[in-house]
Amino acid sequence: MRIVVWTILGCALCLGQETDQCKPSSLNIPGAPYPCVYADRRVAFRVAAPGAQKVQVRLGGQGHIMTRGADGLWTVTSPPQVIGFHYYTISVDGGIVADPATQSFFGGGWYNSAFEVPDPDGAYYSAKDVPHGEVRQRWYYSKVTGAWRRCYVYTPPDYDANARTRYPVLYLLHGWGENEQGWHTQGHADLILDNLIAEKKAKPMIVVMDNLNAVAPGADAGLYHARSIIARRTLADVPPPIGAAPRPAPGQAAARPANWFNTFTEMMIADLIPMVERTYRVAPGREHRAMAGLSMGGMQSFQTALARLDMFAYLGGFSGSSGGRGGFDPKTAHNGVLSDAAAFNKKMKVLFLGIGTAEGPGTKNFSDLLTNAGIHNIYFESDGTAHEWLTWRRCLNDFAPRLFR
Amino acid sequence: MRIVVWTILGCALCLGQETDQCKPSSLNIPGAPYPCVYADRRVAFRVAAPGAQKVQVRLGGQGHIMTRGADGLWTVTSPPQVIGFHYYTISVDGGIVADPATQSFFGGGWYNSAFEVPDPDGAYYSAKDVPHGEVRQRWYYSKVTGAWRRCYVYTPPDYDANARTRYPVLYLLHGWGENEQGWHTQGHADLILDNLIAEKKAKPMIVVMDNLNAVAPGADAGLYHARSIIARRTLADVPPPIGAAPRPAPGQAAARPANWFNTFTEMMIADLIPMVERTYRVAPGREHRAMAGLSMGGMQSFQTALARLDMFAYLGGFSGSSGGRGGFDPKTAHNGVLSDAAAFNKKMKVLFLGIGTAEGPGTKNFSDLLTNAGIHNIYFESDGTAHEWLTWRRCLNDFAPRLFR
Repeated sequence: MRIVVWTILGCALCLGQETDQCKPSSLNIPGAPYPCVYADRRVAFRVAAPGAQKVQVRLGGQGHIMTRGADGLWTVTSPPQVIGFHYYTISVDGGIVADPATQSFFGGGWYNSAFEVPDPDGAYYSAKDVPHGEVRQRWYYSKVTGAWRRCYVYTPPDYDANARTRYPVLYLLHGWGENEQGWHTQGHADLILDNLIAEKKAKPMIVVMDNLNAVAPGADAGLYHARSIIARRTLADVPPPIGAAPRPAPGQAAARPANWFNTFTEMMIADLIPMVERTYRVAPGREHRAMAGLSMGGMQSFQTALARLDMFAYLGGFSGSSGGRGGFDPKTAHNGVLSDAAAFNKKMKVLFLGIGTAEGPGTKNFSDLLTNAGIHNIYFESDGTAHEWLTWRRCLNDFAPRLFR
Repeated sequence: MRIVVWTILGCALCLGQETDQCKPSSLNIPGAPYPCVYADRRVAFRVAAPGAQKVQVRLGGQGHIMTRGADGLWTVTSPPQVIGFHYYTISVDGGIVADPATQSFFGGGWYNSAFEVPDPDGAYYSAKDVPHGEVRQRWYYSKVTGAWRRCYVYTPPDYDANARTRYPVLYLLHGWGENEQGWHTQGHADLILDNLIAEKKAKPMIVVMDNLNAVAPGADAGLYHARSIIARRTLADVPPPIGAAPRPAPGQAAARPANWFNTFTEMMIADLIPMVERTYRVAPGREHRAMAGLSMGGMQSFQTALARLDMFAYLGGFSGSSGGRGGFDPKTAHNGVLSDAAAFNKKMKVLFLGIGTAEGPGTKNFSDLLTNAGIHNIYFESDGTAHEWLTWRRCLNDFAPRLFR
């Protein structure tokens, strides 16, 4: 970290000072100076591992090899990163671990470190001086899975004060390898809604953030998780994470119980929605109920809502939906629910497809395919972002104002 | 992990099978088989670090040296551990990190791994089939610190349904190096209250869990945190955590801003309590207000409540209070508030001192000193536990039923 004191050179050059200094990421634990982000979006890392032979920062699919100083501290500065939230891990002599200098976030099937590159347009997901809702941790028992589950429920500002008001509900799902905490920790869904509601851009609503993993009693959830993780790591030619299960035999990797998507849908309809409607002041009926998710959660949302148009009138897929990988026939997909475009358009008030521009053309192609088949849909692009949380914060910020109109 | 299949030997020996197998800790990420806990409370660990020279599990102040297998997996089994929650870290060639096989918990100033040794008496902090309250994430602005703060608020079951009921409030603080999440993640305060309320052992109450770190604008919070961490690690003769600040010069370590305790108290009275009483249905007056904390949070609670008997009628210190280290004169301490025992006893409905039996005699001595000075107090011991979360779960379980009677 190069800290240059320019003050004696006068004010014109004082501006230069900003670009020569890095600032600790907002996600660092209190007092930790690294990761440290430069104004040009390079990120400096530092790791203490005095006895190690090789230390790397693993970031966005790339390894950044660190250099050992005489003091046993390893350092590296990355090339400029995209604005927004980034997971990373470190590799210490082949052991892949989180950096304890930052808060930990569950993503990719384990706890990762992360940093934020300041976003000049990030006010919409920041805590501002507006009325704030709450994120409530809610335990409930699921008959379908035979286990206690935890979800988080966002209630809008003044929910308690408006004791007779009933609110519409958005069911909002995380992606593969994340959990029910993702949307309010990595995603800041609560602050996005607070800010939209304060500006009257979105209707006050309840947002239910559950865990999309739901496994029937006896089905092998652990194996599913572990295999998925191993499969990913194997493809990237890195060793399995610390403590992970041994690698499965070839061909077994990424096996998923056949009923996996169905079990969540069954659980949601039998257990989650009734619990929500019993516990919170929810407006009744399909026109007050939306479902959306990111990545695998978007796939889950399309599977669920397109099978139950009697229950859902709004549907969003953020970097994941249905049909983005080709071979999608709107006449037959999802049991033919899209085959009569006019009838479908009448029922589905908003069909939203969001994607980062760095994620490829699949979602745009899917949107065009739907449009050509007469299916109304909204296509939203997040400029310059990939399969990452800034894409999904932007998607939610664009999607939520369209709901319950 | 020795897995022995005894089934052909008949049922008498089937019982033996249980003690020969370990079970994954309940805190492991989905699918991770390690840490794995044996019935005799030994804990097996496994770490993948194929290129490392020396790998250790750091647990309860001890290092457990791991052995490298031919597959690059390092393993060790610890001696039997006390029941309950334990933080641990791993050292990979001198780099001290969390094990990504478990959930991450903020403690000791950074994110740690942890495991649970099953507690035969642990039903009181488990999710049972009883009405559940909520833990609500609440943002609020503090004028004293000039910043947005986050606290968590437990509301009892049926808080929303009983729209006219007002509830007493317990302000409950975490310890050094932890944060506002400690009591409901490591401590299960919400489940403890749910279960006590369901059995009618405790009165329904609101519990406010805030961050005891409060720093006035311009004061050096980061330095305080970093130095405290470094000082601790230096004393234990281990390198600083990854990403931590460089070691301070001798004599600077563990420097704490002089007004640190006072700033939290000022913030609590000026910002937190008014926000809580404005936002939630709180019963008015000192007899409906309690304060307690663990370790440094107990010290903070004693500093705050003994200075403001006009505001608090119940006070608890769990492994931390005041005077446990000697030199305490009840005639003069805390501005003499204890000097008139009869007057004090009339105002303070419950003065609670809890400690683990493995923590030394300081708290018992302090309790005796108070008793000899005529100050009513309750002394509670957690059998066989040290400065750890099982002590504090038990303290809360004993303390909460005594409140608001």
